[in-house]
Amino acid sequence: MELWYSEQHTKSVRFSVKVNQHLYTAKSEFQRIDVFKSKEFGTFLTLDGLIMVTEKDEFIYHEMIVHVPMATNPRIKKALVIGAGDGGTVRELTRYPGIESIDMVEIDKMVVDVCRQYLPQTACKLDDPRVRIYYEDGLKFVRSRENLYDLIIVDSTDPFGPGEGLFTKEFYGNCDKALTEEGILVNQHESPYYDKYARSMQRAHQCIREFFPVCRVYQVHIPTYPSGHWLFGFASKKYDPVGKLDEEAWNNLGLQTNYYNTELHKGCFALPNYVKALLADTGK
Amino acid sequence: MELWYSEQHTKSVRFSVKVNQHLYTAKSEFQRIDVFKSKEFGTFLTLDGLIMVTEKDEFIYHEMIVHVPMATNPRIKKALVIGAGDGGTVRELTRYPGIESIDMVEIDKMVVDVCRQYLPQTACKLDDPRVRIYYEDGLKFVRSRENLYDLIIVDSTDPFGPGEGLFTKEFYGNCDKALTEEGILVNQHESPYYDKYARSMQRAHQCIREFFPVCRVYQVHIPTYPSGHWLFGFASKKYDPVGKLDEEAWNNLGLQTNYYNTELHKGCFALPNYVKALLADTGK
Repeated sequence: MELWYSEQHTKSVRFSVKVNQHLYTAKSEFQRIDVFKSKEFGTFLTLDGLIMVTEKDEFIYHEMIVHVPMATNPRIKKALVIGAGDGGTVRELTRYPGIESIDMVEIDKMVVDVCRQYLPQTACKLDDPRVRIYYEDGLKFVRSRENLYDLIIVDSTDPFGPGEGLFTKEFYGNCDKALTEEGILVNQHESPYYDKYARSMQRAHQCIREFFPVCRVYQVHIPTYPSGHWLFGFASKKYDPVGKLDEEAWNNLGLQTNYYNTELHKGCFALPNYVKALLADTGK
Repeated sequence: MELWYSEQHTKSVRFSVKVNQHLYTAKSEFQRIDVFKSKEFGTFLTLDGLIMVTEKDEFIYHEMIVHVPMATNPRIKKALVIGAGDGGTVRELTRYPGIESIDMVEIDKMVVDVCRQYLPQTACKLDDPRVRIYYEDGLKFVRSRENLYDLIIVDSTDPFGPGEGLFTKEFYGNCDKALTEEGILVNQHESPYYDKYARSMQRAHQCIREFFPVCRVYQVHIPTYPSGHWLFGFASKKYDPVGKLDEEAWNNLGLQTNYYNTELHKGCFALPNYVKALLADTGK
């Protein structure tokens, strides 16, 4: 017998993974949660039938969403992470001794519980004393925060389910207020390749550029996401992520990484023409 | 009725495309050739069950295999292209007025004939007066050439079928001899992500580094190739593709591109740590 997990990347493109075992399935208040074990990707988590995290390549996503802003401003002390129930983003943040507090806001407690059990590789630092977890809607959480965080990371799902509110102007306006003058915002920014994702990317970009004077996009290779061509948004009140990067300072921290390095940090902001055109086309 | 084309990216990963029509199928002396029509990718060509070219994203591969060396040395006059039966690489080369001759060596005439019929988007410049097509084995062809070409592009299939000879030391040693002192060699360099491809990548790198003092690797996003994370090798006798890039000269040519730009040219040579480690691990 063979068991295959299949995911529709578009209506006419399907990505399938042979699985050894369907370890977990449940429906939370917000979404369907599944965990599978596979030879190629190790254990992986899906939400509403979309791969979120695999043991094999989660390092790419989590290193790139964390080290790019942290290297841009190594003095970041207070971080807010929205979404990110698997814990991978928090894990990377806890590697910085200079980080004093990490507030994590995850709407779905069940995701966190499932990851603690099945994905200790990502969830392993959720009990770090600097971490405080709020099981709330990120959209509501940021409404009441002002001038508090040096860094906000929006580690959301796609804007098709519970993550939808995190792709709105209201949300990014409130993030702007919740950030200090030093503030940097990084968000998962979808993908330029397939139409549906490209529209989400444009929507996210349009929301963010209204509030932040610095608004850039960087790209990574994440093979288990649709098309493998994934983007992150970098927005800030004053920090340019490339021009002022202090490579030596970051390299002196001595952090071992499998994907991120400071040369790649500069390189990943160079985008293909068709991606630049899509981003420019999001209206002014 | 639904018709799906499926490709095994590994034994336990499958990529499937809904097709409208199976336009062509045949077995040549060297391989099985198929052409499909799909909504997502337009017409696409497969060889031995692997996607080679799709109308939707062939521009990524062909722009990146051609414009990186051409921008590095805008005085390239004589080019040799090995493989590349679909014509896309030749098409991009013919856009340079400075190019005087393009020798194309394709082992399988049937691929060229099929692409002329079904993929005019890539095959459209094969009748350019500067192009001469040799239906020969590339490995044998380069044995008898010396000090002839400013640029060799190895646009091969994977090293699992007829492309196998193009992943050997003998071949790259002969390429070295066939190049002038100005010579640049670019090759499709497989992918770092799935084991089988990563081993091919290491093999290619090991062969090339023996002959060329400058030996670099650059990366691109090609969603229809396994993992979407694809590499090209850049080797030369003296040209550094990044440090000495004359961006202004290339931009003054006024070529319109959908993927390539000179900023990306510099950025794509910055590789993730795990890729650097795999390349370093190819022995000295």
